[in-house]
Amino acid sequence: MSSTPIIALLTDFGIDDAYIGVVKGMILSHNPNVQIVDISHGVKSYSILNGQFFLYSSFKYFPSGTIFYVIVDPGVGTKRRALIVRDKGFYFIGPDNGVLDGAVSDEAESFAIHIDPFSNVSATFHGRDIFAPVAALLASGTQPEKIASPVKERVRKPFPPYKVSGKTLEGVVVHVDKFGNVITSFPNSLLPKNVNEIEISNNILSVKQCTTFADLKEDEIGILLGSAGLIELAKNCSSLASQYSIEIGTNVWLHNE
Amino acid sequence: MSSTPIIALLTDFGIDDAYIGVVKGMILSHNPNVQIVDISHGVKSYSILNGQFFLYSSFKYFPSGTIFYVIVDPGVGTKRRALIVRDKGFYFIGPDNGVLDGAVSDEAESFAIHIDPFSNVSATFHGRDIFAPVAALLASGTQPEKIASPVKERVRKPFPPYKVSGKTLEGVVVHVDKFGNVITSFPNSLLPKNVNEIEISNNILSVKQCTTFADLKEDEIGILLGSAGLIELAKNCSSLASQYSIEIGTNVWLHNE
Amino acid sequence: MSSTPIIALLTDFGIDDAYIGVVKGMILSHNPNVQIVDISHGVKSYSILNGQFFLYSSFKYFPSGTIFYVIVDPGVGTKRRALIVRDKGFYFIGPDNGVLDGAVSDEAESFAIHIDPFSNVSATFHGRDIFAPVAALLASGTQPEKIASPVKERVRKPFPPYKVSGKTLEGVVVHVDKFGNVITSFPNSLLPKNVNEIEISNNILSVKQCTTFADLKEDEIGILLGSAGLIELAKNCSSLASQYSIEIGTNVWLHNE
Repeated sequence: MSSTPIIALLTDFGIDDAYIGVVKGMILSHNPNVQIVDISHGVKSYSILNGQFFLYSSFKYFPSGTIFYVIVDPGVGTKRRALIVRDKGFYFIGPDNGVLDGAVSDEAESFAIHIDPFSNVSATFHGRDIFAPVAALLASGTQPEKIASPVKERVRKPFPPYKVSGKTLEGVVVHVDKFGNVITSFPNSLLPKNVNEIEISNNILSVKQCTTFADLKEDEIGILLGSAGLIELAKNCSSLASQYSIEIGTNVWLHNE
Repeated sequence: MSSTPIIALLTDFGIDDAYIGVVKGMILSHNPNVQIVDISHGVKSYSILNGQFFLYSSFKYFPSGTIFYVIVDPGVGTKRRALIVRDKGFYFIGPDNGVLDGAVSDEAESFAIHIDPFSNVSATFHGRDIFAPVAALLASGTQPEKIASPVKERVRKPFPPYKVSGKTLEGVVVHVDKFGNVITSFPNSLLPKNVNEIEISNNILSVKQCTTFADLKEDEIGILLGSAGLIELAKNCSSLASQYSIEIGTNVWLHNE
Repeated sequence: MSSTPIIALLTDFGIDDAYIGVVKGMILSHNPNVQIVDISHGVKSYSILNGQFFLYSSFKYFPSGTIFYVIVDPGVGTKRRALIVRDKGFYFIGPDNGVLDGAVSDEAESFAIHIDPFSNVSATFHGRDIFAPVAALLASGTQPEKIASPVKERVRKPFPPYKVSGKTLEGVVVHVDKFGNVITSFPNSLLPKNVNEIEISNNILSVKQCTTFADLKEDEIGILLGSAGLIELAKNCSSLASQYSIEIGTNVWLHNE
């Protein structure tokens, strides 16, 4: 495809600091002919699980060839590797801590970036000093083999994380959105028929199966097929998460009777 | 004009989730040759009034031909229609709930989008599944008639909402900005001469007519011609809204003596 | 360079209002062939010090020719001048209040913008009415001399602000980031060897010199060479700033023994 290459940014940096602006400047200094798109910088600080969810719910909507820059990196500056993964017609770059498992498959071709060629690498901002120039280089057509070495094993954290024990699904909250909707780690395909309760943290909540938010009366909690492909819990025009102090990482159980 | 078409996004999605990133990916997958600009995603959740104000205060500064993508949509997934409106040299797309009335006129050509052609439409994320591809198609030069049917009536909510009762103006707060400035629904042209008080919620505030914030002493409340064309209330370098718990939707009265 | 000119935006406007969207529309209306990049709009409201830090930590990563639009402007609408500064292969535009001193040198060529040619200048939104069209004009190749007059003196606020009194360094907190890391006004080059405490506000904190965050145990406070070139204080995966109520502007002392 001859259109401008896209670099899509996903981080836990927030946008109130200048970190993301600096990353964009660095990318454009290395390659002005790219289109930079923010997926989000609102990943919960240090949460690999939440970063995986953001990647999982977004990457497939981007054009083939997109370079995903994914930084949730509590181990920055340690010996953890910096990866390039080529999979499904995309590139994914990020730290070797499992965050890329939101999108990439087990067999995906993986490469560990050579840090040496990058001068003046700080210990705390590899997003600027390593990943930004690497994204720019990939966008210029540089092959990963030129700047990285193949690796056989990556740190793996399968996503979405859940298990089936008899008739019980055990999972975790992978995201709470701006509206207080709760996204679980259960794929939509596992939604039990006639479900009417869910266990979450220490609460057993009565839920009503619904199609959209407006189907719910003021006090009802809905369970629905989520737009990201994962089962969601929601109220209509108010925050379910605040009401029950539900957070990313909270445990959830669904009983299929 | 031959330059890249602009799609300007205005929503209540926030930017801490991946929703907006997904919308951008979806637009670029359908049409990589567009320039996507964020107006804001900070519209108060579900507030059509606030969404109207954002649109009202911004659209006229964009180049002719801009496609405005405006999603404040508490009725997503219900039978409410999805609209394309052609007006003033622009396109506006959004739900049929009045939010577009921040910019479009009564007589504007309106079209209801055919939902059928879009595959895999979720019940809760029409911003991704319908409005994003529609924006991309319009940017490609597709005529609304190809993907939508003319409609005679839209849901109307005139903006800015206020009424005149004798010498009293009765209106509402349409926005509170980051600095705590309070934007009313009264057009600048109605600012009374020698105004020295305003009634807001349950308070009667003494106000000083001023030109800019720096004209105000520390405890003074200013009333001024707002940059969006609507009368504003403000303090200098501190938040008026927090001090008096003023919110979007709070009632306001001005007495013209 | 023939690539698209870059306009990089840095303000205290936040992104929850439509102000930045309006600025972008205004720029694109005057010149559609620019690439607009957000550095950040999270500068602390009215804080020139914080705005200087954002500019200081970001400008050098942008391509030569970038036009920096820097608005932290408590004096908007007063007689303070609106400046264009040409320095280091860049343009910087912003109010004459010292905020540009985060990047520009004493001898930089400075120009005061002629306000008269701009019609309908509001008293409270020069970011839209003056600075946006000026940025667009500079990006079109207009020389500053055409729209502004040379000035000999600017309001100066040297950055980073600190002083050395005998063996004591006296400075100030210039930023607190999303992770609660505290950035001081002390250049990295002044980090004392064997430093083990720092005085900040009314606290004397025991600190451990470290290279990256992961070097720290749960209760330790690290002092490290910051990625922006200024000494930082941090904890590992928790907010130092919240724990000790440290804010932008808080005083800091380092004793070099």
